[in-house]
Amino acid sequence: MARLLTGIQSSGATGEIHLGNILGAIMPGVELSRDENNEAYFFIADLHSLTTVKDAAIRKRNVHAVAAAWLAFGFDTDNNVFYRQSDIPEVCELTWYLSCFTPYPMLANAHSFKDKSEQLSDVNAGLFNYPVLMAADILLYDAEFVPVGKDQRQHLEMTRDIAGAFNHQVGETLVLPEAKIDERVMTIPGTDGRKMSKSYNNFINIFLPDKKLRKVIMSIETDSTPLEDPKDASSCNVFALYQLLASEAQIQEMKANYEGGNYGYGHAKQALFELIIEKFQKEREIYWKLIENPSIIEEKLALGAIKARKTANEVLQRVRVKLGYEK
Amino acid sequence: MARLLTGIQSSGATGEIHLGNILGAIMPGVELSRDENNEAYFFIADLHSLTTVKDAAIRKRNVHAVAAAWLAFGFDTDNNVFYRQSDIPEVCELTWYLSCFTPYPMLANAHSFKDKSEQLSDVNAGLFNYPVLMAADILLYDAEFVPVGKDQRQHLEMTRDIAGAFNHQVGETLVLPEAKIDERVMTIPGTDGRKMSKSYNNFINIFLPDKKLRKVIMSIETDSTPLEDPKDASSCNVFALYQLLASEAQIQEMKANYEGGNYGYGHAKQALFELIIEKFQKEREIYWKLIENPSIIEEKLALGAIKARKTANEVLQRVRVKLGYEK
Repeated sequence: MARLLTGIQSSGATGEIHLGNILGAIMPGVELSRDENNEAYFFIADLHSLTTVKDAAIRKRNVHAVAAAWLAFGFDTDNNVFYRQSDIPEVCELTWYLSCFTPYPMLANAHSFKDKSEQLSDVNAGLFNYPVLMAADILLYDAEFVPVGKDQRQHLEMTRDIAGAFNHQVGETLVLPEAKIDERVMTIPGTDGRKMSKSYNNFINIFLPDKKLRKVIMSIETDSTPLEDPKDASSCNVFALYQLLASEAQIQEMKANYEGGNYGYGHAKQALFELIIEKFQKEREIYWKLIENPSIIEEKLALGAIKARKTANEVLQRVRVKLGYEK
Repeated sequence: MARLLTGIQSSGATGEIHLGNILGAIMPGVELSRDENNEAYFFIADLHSLTTVKDAAIRKRNVHAVAAAWLAFGFDTDNNVFYRQSDIPEVCELTWYLSCFTPYPMLANAHSFKDKSEQLSDVNAGLFNYPVLMAADILLYDAEFVPVGKDQRQHLEMTRDIAGAFNHQVGETLVLPEAKIDERVMTIPGTDGRKMSKSYNNFINIFLPDKKLRKVIMSIETDSTPLEDPKDASSCNVFALYQLLASEAQIQEMKANYEGGNYGYGHAKQALFELIIEKFQKEREIYWKLIENPSIIEEKLALGAIKARKTANEVLQRVRVKLGYEK
């Protein structure tokens, strides 16, 4: 049984979950949670979000939106651990301990800090310490594997370095996690053809009410080929999204429509809209039921917190003993 | 009733409490604790010590030595709050929150970080974050006054700035503490005439067994004036220490001895040794009783932790609500 750990971002001003999140993170994550060889720790990183989001109402809405999306897609909370980061304040205690084993230059030279400190007006110490909190997130649960995209490798390397420094100085204590690079990572195109991202505001939130969702899909950028002319599916943003969701037969049918002419982008968009509505009907229903009944979400998170906290306290006790802080 | 807060250092490799600590910190602190207009929160800063001390046994010994010294000098634990910092892990949670309101450049430009990072080989992120933990130490208890020496003013200013930034962004939440500059701060000379300090290894640990204590006092540096000649009390390290502890009559008597000649530095040192033994007889006894019965110390600290934790949780709950983390 391998213990996997994944943090789920909950930042952004709107808390919207988009198709990129769903295809790139939620669906593969749910699959991991259903593999009986894994024990998956998945947490909503609402402490990290404080580095950029200060508003309490936005934070809570984001947490519920993220949790509702994961639950709607069937994350197996019975056989795994699904929790909100801030429900386990032990992670902050470990963060302090680890910070005393983290070389200052390692943080000052981290790519993510350099990037963020150039982009943001509010360069706070939380941003600087982000990798230490991330290391604590992972090490607090003896995680063995952390599925990461290529751009997050440095953070996992830092976690390993911090754990290594700790073990070296006070003796074998922390489990060094391994990166599990997901080779299948898909880049989901947004409505303008660039990578779908909240920062580009080119995303499709599949949980929107029908009318709003349709409007977003109708806004996908296309070229000006006239309705009657044949069209190149391979260069079309609508088709790119359609083929990620459709069956092989549906894909071939749309391709034929593109090539045959007399099939406009409006038709393709309408087909994409209907496909999303149909494909995610169940998930959309569950999502809205959960958003309207947040106590169900809170119950799931409370159960996760109990499980997470148990592991956290075992590991933390091991750390405390090594440092002379045992209770 | 004014709430005062003071952190007590517990670093250093030996955990020894010296005369400088006693005259400069413990005796004035005990006096504060006995003033019924004050409610004093005094804590042993064993989380801060992790920035430099990694050894668990040293940390525990230091905590017990510091606690025993304060208790031996009569700190009033019934009407005040005397606790070990690490017993209140809530301070680490608040540290994370505050770090997200602390401008990175404020920490990078702090004098203490610059000084330490030039002196130490292990420049860790804990050293960098030190002022944020210190702010959390103070703000977690709604402290109104913090007695500080002049060299600690910048830290208190940073605490006020962090609290101000927090209140500004999420609404009035944290109490801004005021510095209480102690004008009477004495500089206690060490055995070599420089300020008594562990880093100079010129300190007198009054809790040493008689023989060892005498040896340290005999090592005080003096000039080479012959035994029979008159001596200048005002330039003598032995006399400087003697006059801090002796009665007016004793001081005048020793002064006369210096001026009269036929009175050697050995005599003066013996007199200083006897004065220390006599003056601190009770404190030395209590100290050793406590060191040999650490469960008494632990009981006192456990009581302090209960009181401190109650306040900490009230304040932290206020903070959590403002940030969307309430339980």
